[in-house]
Amino acid sequence: MLLFDNNMPHTPLKRQEDIGLSPYELKFRGRHRSEDVQMTVFEIGAEDVQEATIHSAEEILSYKDSDKLIWLNIDGLHNEALMRELAENLHIPTEILSDVMEPATRPQMEEFDNGLFVSLKIMQFNEKLHQVSIDNLSIVMMNNLLITFLEEECNQFNPVKERLKKHTRRFRALGTDYLAFALLDVVIDNYIFILDMLGEKIETLETKMVLSHDRRILESINLLKHEISDLGRYIKPAREMIMSLVKLDSDFITSKNNKHYKELQDNINLAVELLDYYHELLYNELNIYHSSMSTRLNDIMALLTVFSVIFIPLTFIVGVYGMNFDNMPELHLRHGYFIVWGVMLLIAAGMLWYFKKKKWF
Amino acid sequence: MLLFDNNMPHTPLKRQEDIGLSPYELKFRGRHRSEDVQMTVFEIGAEDVQEATIHSAEEILSYKDSDKLIWLNIDGLHNEALMRELAENLHIPTEILSDVMEPATRPQMEEFDNGLFVSLKIMQFNEKLHQVSIDNLSIVMMNNLLITFLEEECNQFNPVKERLKKHTRRFRALGTDYLAFALLDVVIDNYIFILDMLGEKIETLETKMVLSHDRRILESINLLKHEISDLGRYIKPAREMIMSLVKLDSDFITSKNNKHYKELQDNINLAVELLDYYHELLYNELNIYHSSMSTRLNDIMALLTVFSVIFIPLTFIVGVYGMNFDNMPELHLRHGYFIVWGVMLLIAAGMLWYFKKKKWF
Amino acid sequence: MLLFDNNMPHTPLKRQEDIGLSPYELKFRGRHRSEDVQMTVFEIGAEDVQEATIHSAEEILSYKDSDKLIWLNIDGLHNEALMRELAENLHIPTEILSDVMEPATRPQMEEFDNGLFVSLKIMQFNEKLHQVSIDNLSIVMMNNLLITFLEEECNQFNPVKERLKKHTRRFRALGTDYLAFALLDVVIDNYIFILDMLGEKIETLETKMVLSHDRRILESINLLKHEISDLGRYIKPAREMIMSLVKLDSDFITSKNNKHYKELQDNINLAVELLDYYHELLYNELNIYHSSMSTRLNDIMALLTVFSVIFIPLTFIVGVYGMNFDNMPELHLRHGYFIVWGVMLLIAAGMLWYFKKKKWF
Amino acid sequence: MLLFDNNMPHTPLKRQEDIGLSPYELKFRGRHRSEDVQMTVFEIGAEDVQEATIHSAEEILSYKDSDKLIWLNIDGLHNEALMRELAENLHIPTEILSDVMEPATRPQMEEFDNGLFVSLKIMQFNEKLHQVSIDNLSIVMMNNLLITFLEEECNQFNPVKERLKKHTRRFRALGTDYLAFALLDVVIDNYIFILDMLGEKIETLETKMVLSHDRRILESINLLKHEISDLGRYIKPAREMIMSLVKLDSDFITSKNNKHYKELQDNINLAVELLDYYHELLYNELNIYHSSMSTRLNDIMALLTVFSVIFIPLTFIVGVYGMNFDNMPELHLRHGYFIVWGVMLLIAAGMLWYFKKKKWF
Amino acid sequence: MLLFDNNMPHTPLKRQEDIGLSPYELKFRGRHRSEDVQMTVFEIGAEDVQEATIHSAEEILSYKDSDKLIWLNIDGLHNEALMRELAENLHIPTEILSDVMEPATRPQMEEFDNGLFVSLKIMQFNEKLHQVSIDNLSIVMMNNLLITFLEEECNQFNPVKERLKKHTRRFRALGTDYLAFALLDVVIDNYIFILDMLGEKIETLETKMVLSHDRRILESINLLKHEISDLGRYIKPAREMIMSLVKLDSDFITSKNNKHYKELQDNINLAVELLDYYHELLYNELNIYHSSMSTRLNDIMALLTVFSVIFIPLTFIVGVYGMNFDNMPELHLRHGYFIVWGVMLLIAAGMLWYFKKKKWF
Repeated sequence: MLLFDNNMPHTPLKRQEDIGLSPYELKFRGRHRSEDVQMTVFEIGAEDVQEATIHSAEEILSYKDSDKLIWLNIDGLHNEALMRELAENLHIPTEILSDVMEPATRPQMEEFDNGLFVSLKIMQFNEKLHQVSIDNLSIVMMNNLLITFLEEECNQFNPVKERLKKHTRRFRALGTDYLAFALLDVVIDNYIFILDMLGEKIETLETKMVLSHDRRILESINLLKHEISDLGRYIKPAREMIMSLVKLDSDFITSKNNKHYKELQDNINLAVELLDYYHELLYNELNIYHSSMSTRLNDIMALLTVFSVIFIPLTFIVGVYGMNFDNMPELHLRHGYFIVWGVMLLIAAGMLWYFKKKKWF
Repeated sequence: MLLFDNNMPHTPLKRQEDIGLSPYELKFRGRHRSEDVQMTVFEIGAEDVQEATIHSAEEILSYKDSDKLIWLNIDGLHNEALMRELAENLHIPTEILSDVMEPATRPQMEEFDNGLFVSLKIMQFNEKLHQVSIDNLSIVMMNNLLITFLEEECNQFNPVKERLKKHTRRFRALGTDYLAFALLDVVIDNYIFILDMLGEKIETLETKMVLSHDRRILESINLLKHEISDLGRYIKPAREMIMSLVKLDSDFITSKNNKHYKELQDNINLAVELLDYYHELLYNELNIYHSSMSTRLNDIMALLTVFSVIFIPLTFIVGVYGMNFDNMPELHLRHGYFIVWGVMLLIAAGMLWYFKKKKWF
Repeated sequence: MLLFDNNMPHTPLKRQEDIGLSPYELKFRGRHRSEDVQMTVFEIGAEDVQEATIHSAEEILSYKDSDKLIWLNIDGLHNEALMRELAENLHIPTEILSDVMEPATRPQMEEFDNGLFVSLKIMQFNEKLHQVSIDNLSIVMMNNLLITFLEEECNQFNPVKERLKKHTRRFRALGTDYLAFALLDVVIDNYIFILDMLGEKIETLETKMVLSHDRRILESINLLKHEISDLGRYIKPAREMIMSLVKLDSDFITSKNNKHYKELQDNINLAVELLDYYHELLYNELNIYHSSMSTRLNDIMALLTVFSVIFIPLTFIVGVYGMNFDNMPELHLRHGYFIVWGVMLLIAAGMLWYFKKKKWF
Repeated sequence: MLLFDNNMPHTPLKRQEDIGLSPYELKFRGRHRSEDVQMTVFEIGAEDVQEATIHSAEEILSYKDSDKLIWLNIDGLHNEALMRELAENLHIPTEILSDVMEPATRPQMEEFDNGLFVSLKIMQFNEKLHQVSIDNLSIVMMNNLLITFLEEECNQFNPVKERLKKHTRRFRALGTDYLAFALLDVVIDNYIFILDMLGEKIETLETKMVLSHDRRILESINLLKHEISDLGRYIKPAREMIMSLVKLDSDFITSKNNKHYKELQDNINLAVELLDYYHELLYNELNIYHSSMSTRLNDIMALLTVFSVIFIPLTFIVGVYGMNFDNMPELHLRHGYFIVWGVMLLIAAGMLWYFKKKKWF
Repeated sequence: MLLFDNNMPHTPLKRQEDIGLSPYELKFRGRHRSEDVQMTVFEIGAEDVQEATIHSAEEILSYKDSDKLIWLNIDGLHNEALMRELAENLHIPTEILSDVMEPATRPQMEEFDNGLFVSLKIMQFNEKLHQVSIDNLSIVMMNNLLITFLEEECNQFNPVKERLKKHTRRFRALGTDYLAFALLDVVIDNYIFILDMLGEKIETLETKMVLSHDRRILESINLLKHEISDLGRYIKPAREMIMSLVKLDSDFITSKNNKHYKELQDNINLAVELLDYYHELLYNELNIYHSSMSTRLNDIMALLTVFSVIFIPLTFIVGVYGMNFDNMPELHLRHGYFIVWGVMLLIAAGMLWYFKKKKWF
C-alpha cells in the first residue's frame, strides 16, 4: 500500500536518550545521514531570479542585507555546526532550530522577534516505488528571507520554482509570505492528491466487495483504514496550524496575502473532509463485509440443514430395515421394499414443501 | 440509485498537472466541453424585466452602469478568454474567477473590494434518468450586478425567473442580495427535496426488512449509506458557508434582507438534521439486519440440532443390530425388533420433551 | 407503537411545486382540510377572563387596542385570505405568516418590529388511539396580544385555560410573555410525559430480554429506536430555539419572566437528556440481544457437537461390523459382540470425560 | 446490583396530573409520605454550635435576624403549608420552593434577590441493603442562613456536623457559602465512592471474563452498563451546575471561598472522567465477550468439522460393503476386509495430516 | 503488560473514612509508608549548584531568603508534621498541601497569593520489572523557590539535574518557571516514550493478526485497550492543566518562558493525538479480528457442508441396499452393484461441479 509498510519496524517518536534535552540544544534527533547538506539560494529581484548552490553558512550572510527576496532551501538537517551558525548570524532563536532538527515534531506555528516559524509534514508520492514518502517541512519567514528545511531533497516545489521564473515581479512584490503560501499550497494540494489515490482504492474495493467473500478484501480494508488513520495524524494538526496562521495578527503576513491564507484554510478543510469521508466509507465497508459474511453463513447453514434434515430420517429408516432380527415381519411383505420407498419419498416431499413454504431456498 | 453510480470510475478532485497552479491563473480544471458558453442577461427595472442572450464580454459592459438591477447567468466555465475579460472589465479579482473555474472547490464565501463571492453545490434531480446531477454554483454579488456561473445549464431557477416577472418591483427594491437569496433558497429546497426522496427509500426498506433475509437488502443499505455520505460532503460545508454569510457584516447584504438569510440558515439546518436522521436510521437498519441474520442462524441451527440429536442415537442403535456377529442374543429374541422400536420411541420422546422444556421450538 | 406507524407512507417535507415559493407568499403547504378555521379569543382583564368564538378577521381588530391582555387561538392554517388580513391589520410580517403556513418548518424563533415569533412541535398523546399526534405550534407575541396557531384543535392547553381563570390577575400583570411561557411549559412537559411512556416500554423490554430469544424483541427494539430518533428530530431543535429565546435580549420578554424561561430551558434539557439516556439504553439492549444470540448459538452448536462427536465414531464401528466380507474374523469370536460394546462404551466415556474437563456442559 | 433493581417498576418523571401546574404553586410532586417533617437547626456562633429540633415555621423566624450563622435542615418535602410559610416569612421566591418540591427536577442553580438556590442528586450507599438510595438535595443560601431540603433523612452530612463542632470559628468566619461547599463536597465525594464500588465490580468482571463463556457475565455487563448510564444522568448535569456556580459572579459566594468551589469542580470532573472511563471499559468488555464467543464458536465448529470430515467418508465405505448385492466381487477377496481397513486408515491419516497442516488444532 | 496488572486488586480513589475531610486538614490519604521522607536541596547560584540533603523543616527556612534559586525536592508525603511546618514557615496555603497529600487528586493548577501550584501524574518505566510505575508530581513555584513532591523517589529528573550543572547560569537567569518547565518537559517526554512502547506492541500485534486465529491475540487487544484507557485518564487531564497554564496570566510565569510553555502544550497535544491514534488502531484491530473469525467460520462451515452434502445422499443409497427385504429386485441384477457405484459417482461429480460453480472452494 501507499504509506504503511507491513514489514517496516515501528519507529519510535522519542528515544530514551533524547528525553530531557535542553530546548536550546541543537541536536539532530532523526536518522543520521552521511550525505552533505544541500543548500540552494534563489535571489528574486524585480526582473529576474538567480539560482545558486552554496556550501557554507558564511555565504548565506552575503544575502542577508540584499534588497532582493531571498529563498534559501536546505536539504539535510544533521549538520549541527551549520545550524549554530544560522542561529547566530541570522538571529533565528535556537529553540526554533532545535524544533527544526526534531523530525517527530508536531505541525506548529510560532512567531518570534524577527520572523515566523511554520512546520508541517510534506507527503511526496514516488511513482517508481508506488509509495508515499513523508518528510518534515520547516519554513522560517523573515523580512526578505525565507528559509525552508527538509530532511531529504524533494521535487514537489518544482512548479513553484517555474512560477518564480515566470512571475518574478509578482513574487518580488508580494514578499516572503506569498512565497510561503505558494509552498504550503503545493504541500496541501499533494495531501488531496494522495487522498484521491486512496479514495480510488476505497471505491474500487466497494464495487468488488458486493458479491465476493474473499479474505483479501478484509486485509485491504484493514490496510486502508490504517493508512487513513496515519494520514489523519499528519493532516489534522496541519489544519490546526493553518487555522491559527489565518487568525494570527502578525507583521510577517501582510493583509494583501490574507486571502491566500484563507484559501489554504479552505483547501486543508477539504482535505480533512475527504479524510472523514473515506474513514466513513471504510467503516461502512467493514460493516457490510461483516454482514455479508453472516448472510453467507446463513446460506451455507441453510443448505446443510435442508440436506441433513431431509436425509437423516431416511437414513434412519433404511438402517431399521438393515437390522438382522429374526422376527421382522415387514421384511417378508411382498411389496415391503416398495412401500418403504413410498414412505421415504413422501417424507422427503413433505420436508421440501415445508422448506419451500418457509422460503429457505 | 440516485447519486452513486456503481460503475462510474472514481473522479479525482486534484489532477497532478493542476498542483502548484498560481491562484491568479485562469485555467479551467473541470472536464473540457466543446459547446459554446451560454450567457443570459436579465435587466430588472422598476416596471419590467428584459431577458436577452449575449455572446461576448463587451456586451456585458453596456449593462455595467445601468441603474437597473442586472442578473447575468453564465453556463459553461471553460472559456478562459471570457473570464479574463470579466476580471478586467468588471474588476472581479482573478483569484475569485480562478475558484469559479475549479469545479472541485469547497462551498465557500469571500468578500472582496467591490462585491461578495459565494459558491456551493447545486443538485438537480433529472426525472427521465431518475438520477441527480451535481454542479457547482458560483455567485458574484456586486452593487447592481449579480453574476451566476454554472458548468451546465439547469432549469432549477425557473421559479425564480417567474417570480422575477411577477414581482419585478420587489426584486428591484430589495437588490442583488435578495435575488441571491432567492437562488440560494431554491438550491437548498432542492437539497431537502432530494433528501426526501432518499428518505422514502430508506423507510420503504425498513418495512421490507423485518422478516426478509434477502441479500439485496444489504446491498441497498450499502448504497443508501454511500449516498448519504456523499450528500453530507456537499451539504455540510454549504451549511458552514451559509452560517458565515449570516454572521458576516457586509455592505453587500443589506439589513432588510437579513431575515431572509436567517431563513436560509434554518433551511440548511433542516437539511443537515435530515441527513443525520437518515444516517441514524440506516445505521440502525444495518444493525437490525445483522441481528436478524444472527437470529435466523440460531433458528436454522436449532432445527438442525434438534433433528440430529434425536436421530443420531437412533441411527446408532439400528446400526448396532445391523452388525453381523455370530453371537448376538438380542437378535433371536421373539419380540427383539419390537422392543428396539419401543426403546427408540422412548428416546425420541424424551429428547422432544427436553427440547420443548428448553423452549427450542 | 406510539409515533411511528409501520404502514404509514412516507410524508415528504418538501413538495416539488413548493420549491421556489416567495417568502412573501401566503400559501398553505400542509394537507388541505375542508373544515372551517376555529378562532377563540380570551380577553384577560384585571378581574376576569372572557372567552368568545369569532368568525372573521374584522372581529379581531376590535380587540386590537384593548387595554386587556388578548389571547387569540387559531386552529386551522389553510385560510389564506384570513392570513392576509392578519398580516395587514395586525402588522405581522408576511414572512412570519408564510412560515406559520408551512407545517414542515423547523422549530424557530424570530423577533420582528412589533413582536416575537416562536414555533415548535406539539405532541399530544391520544389515549383512545394509544398514539401520539404531532402538530406545529406557532406563537406570535405582541404588546398585549398573543396569537397561537395550530393545524388541528388540541386539548393540551386546558390546564392553562383553567389557571387563566383562577389567577387572572397574575396573568394580566405578567403579560403576554408569561402566557407564552405557560403554553410552552405545557408543551415541554408533554414531551417529558411521552418520553416517560417510551421509557417504560424500554425498561420493560430490558427485563424481558434477559433469557428470551424472541425475534419480536428485535422488532420492538427496532421500532423504539426509530421512535427515539423521531422524537430527537423534534425535541433537539426545540431546545436550540428555547436556548436562543433565553439568551435573547428582547423587549417582548420582560425581565420579571426571565426566570421562567430559564426553567423552560431546564425542562427541555431534561427532555434531551432523557432522549440520550433512552437512546443509550436501546443501543445497549441491541448489543446485549446480539451477544445473547451468539451465546445461544454457542450453546446450540456445543450440544450438536458433543452428540455428533460421541456418536460418529460409534456409528462407524457398528458400520464396520455390518459389512458382508466373507472373511471377517472378529465376527466369529465368541464374545465379539460384547467386546465391541465394551470398546464403544469406553470411547463414549472418554469423550464425555474430555468434554466435562473442557467445561462444555 | 447497586442502583438498578431489575424488578422495580419504571417511575415516571412526570405524572399527567402535574402537567400545566403553575410555577407559583407549592404542590409536592413526589411519593407522599405520612411521617412528620423533621427540622433541625444549627446555630453557629463564634465559640460554639447549638443544635435544636424545631416543629413549626414560626420557630425559624426567631433565628432570622440572629448574628450567628444558621443552618436549617429540613427532611421531608410534603408539608405544603410549611413551604408557604417559609416563602412568606423568609422571602424565598415561590418558584424556588416549587422546584424544591419536585423530586424529578434537574440539578440546577439559580440566583434570586436575596440568595442562591442550588439543587443536585445525593447518593447514599446503604451498607445493610447493599444498595444506593438517591434523593434530591436542595440548598438555599441566604445572608446568614442556609437551608437544606431532603426528602428523607440521611447520615451523609455527619462528618460536616462534626467539623462544625471542631472548627466552629472557621465556619462562622467563612459564612454560608463555606458551609454549602462543605456539604456539596461530601455529596461529590460520595459520587466518587460509589463509582469506585462499581469500578471494582467492573475490574473483577474483566479478570473473570478472559476464559469463561458464562452467560451470567453478559447479564452482569448489561446491569453495570445500565448503572453507569443511570449515574451519568445524575452526575453530568451536576457537573454543569457546579461549573456555572464557579463562573457565577454572585454576592453569595465570597472570593475567599472561590478556591473551594474550584476544588469542587475538580472533584466533579474527576467523577465524570471515572464515569467515562468505566463506560469505556464496559464497552470494551462487551466487545471482548462477543469476540470471545465467536472464537469459541470457531473452536466448536472446527472440532465438529474435523470429526465429521474424517468419519463421513469412512462411514460411507463401510456402508458400501454392507450392501446385499448378489454380485459384489470385493466381498469374496481373501483379504478384502483388511484391505478396506487399510484404505480407511490411509484416508483418516491423510485427513489428519491435512488439518494439522492447516493448523486447525 | 506495562501498566495494568491483571491480578492487582482494584485500588479505590476514595476511602469512606476520607469523605468529608476539611480542605484545611493535612492528612496523608495514600498508602502509608514507614521509610523516612527524603529531602534534597539544590542551591543554584550564578556560577555553581550545590546539592544537599536535609532532614528537618527548619533547615529549609535558612534557604528561604537566599538570593539564589532554590529547588527543594521532597520524596514521601506521609509526614504530616513536616507539611504543617512548610505551610506555616513558607506560607503555602494548607489547601494546597492538603491536595499534595491526596494521591488520587486530578492533574490541576492553582495560583495562590505568593506562588503557583501544579500537579500531574508522573510515569516511570522500570526496565528491570518491565513495568510502568505511576506517581503524583506536585510542584509549588514561588519567587526564588521551587518545591517538588513525590510519593516515591524517581530518577526521571536526572537529565535535568545534569543540565542544571552544565547551564547553571541559564537556569539562574530564567528562574523557577524555567526549572518547572524543564521538569514538566521530562514528564511529558516520558508519556510519549511510554506511548511509543505501547505503539510498538500494537503494531506488532497487527502484523501478527492477519492470518492467525489465536485466542491470545484477543487477550492482547483487550489488555492494550485497557492500558490505553488508563493512560488517557492520566494524560488527558494533564493536557487540560497545561493548556490553562499557557493561558494563565500569572506573575509566576515570566514572558521570556512563555514560548517554552507553548512547547509543552505542543508535546502534550502530541501525546493525546498518539493516544487517540492507538485507540483507533486497537478498535480497528478488534473489528478485523472479529471479521476474520467470521470469515474463518465461513470457511469451516463451507468445508463441513461440502463434505456432508456430497456424502449424505451416498450414505443413504448404500443404506438402501443394505436393507434385508426379501423382495429387492435390484440386488439380483447382474451389474446392480456397479450401476449403483456409477450412480453414486455421478451424484458426487454433480455436487462437486455445483460447488465449484458457486465458488465454494
